[in-house]
Amino acid sequence: MMKFYDCTPAPSPRRTRIFMAEKGIEVENIQVDLGNREQLGDAYKKINPRCTVPTLVLEDGTTLTENLAMSVYLEEMYPEPPLMGRNPQEKAAVMEWNARCEAEGMLAVAEAFRNSAKGFVDRATTGPNNYAQIPELAERGRARASAFLPVLNERLEGREFIATNEFTMADITGLIFADFAGWIKLPLDDMPNVKRWHEAVSSRPSASA
Amino acid sequence: MMKFYDCTPAPSPRRTRIFMAEKGIEVENIQVDLGNREQLGDAYKKINPRCTVPTLVLEDGTTLTENLAMSVYLEEMYPEPPLMGRNPQEKAAVMEWNARCEAEGMLAVAEAFRNSAKGFVDRATTGPNNYAQIPELAERGRARASAFLPVLNERLEGREFIATNEFTMADITGLIFADFAGWIKLPLDDMPNVKRWHEAVSSRPSASA
Repeated sequence: MMKFYDCTPAPSPRRTRIFMAEKGIEVENIQVDLGNREQLGDAYKKINPRCTVPTLVLEDGTTLTENLAMSVYLEEMYPEPPLMGRNPQEKAAVMEWNARCEAEGMLAVAEAFRNSAKGFVDRATTGPNNYAQIPELAERGRARASAFLPVLNERLEGREFIATNEFTMADITGLIFADFAGWIKLPLDDMPNVKRWHEAVSSRPSASA
Repeated sequence: MMKFYDCTPAPSPRRTRIFMAEKGIEVENIQVDLGNREQLGDAYKKINPRCTVPTLVLEDGTTLTENLAMSVYLEEMYPEPPLMGRNPQEKAAVMEWNARCEAEGMLAVAEAFRNSAKGFVDRATTGPNNYAQIPELAERGRARASAFLPVLNERLEGREFIATNEFTMADITGLIFADFAGWIKLPLDDMPNVKRWHEAVSSRPSASA
């Protein structure tokens, strides 16, 4: 059985948990205590020298630390239901919107959060090296995340899902962004399409995985 | 014929140019004059509201603005030679190392460069909105890029290519990172495996695409 190193409250591993839940994939779940910086300890460094969660260890021992690497592998091994598009055009649309929800959404919120939250002094980035918080970067991250909300709202005009006409990986990354935005108190109020879509994808059983 | 909006000296569109050159894909090449901020003008905004290069316009009019979206589409339509892996394990390895070369390499150099170069005052990020430079972020980007070089050097110990046993998209992103690192004068001198690999991939015909 594959091993999944997880931390339930953290945004990043939730992406992969939802992806696996949609496909009904079962893994051995091992919690890593980020609150106590277990990810920076020697034991976890041997598993994942990047000191990040999630980590997926395949049955042959291969270690994956990137959400996209895990998604591509799992989509190949467990193709139903497809979460990355059914044809070249759809696959491109999923990658396009997944990348935008990540770079303009999730990572912008992460910049805002990690560069301002009290528990993250000197931990402004993930990884083995400590970097001090940059208050201007927290502000910029918040501005960038705010600027992405109307983009997403416009994209969702008349659409049920972000990338294609069914639920895909792009909706997962979008959902993580929308929930993570709450951590920096970014309101979704003026974004009716985002709100409608957010309620719908949040009500899927996989959202509580 | 597909249209490719390009700017030859810029790092990002070169990724896709090399990808297409390896597969022998021909496109209509349209240069966008970033030096004169043509990407921020109304005409280009109608093509790509993100104001970034590259943009790939497919024959059906679909517009792609993300390197990964273009790569996935082109790999599906022009499968030979494969640049994203031949089986699930290889596909995962390509995504894993492509993402690392991008996030820990390319984007770290971009942070260092855009937050310090004279021509980028108020243009510290790509996109339609102006953001001021953050000198501390330039320093942090340089530190992060420097920290990735030994990681890449260790990965390339005894290996010809970064992700699998043949040239893939991860080598393209790695090459862009290594060349872009020269823009911030990051030396490769103490990284013998990176230097050997860099010389080999730089000598491929696609590298001058």
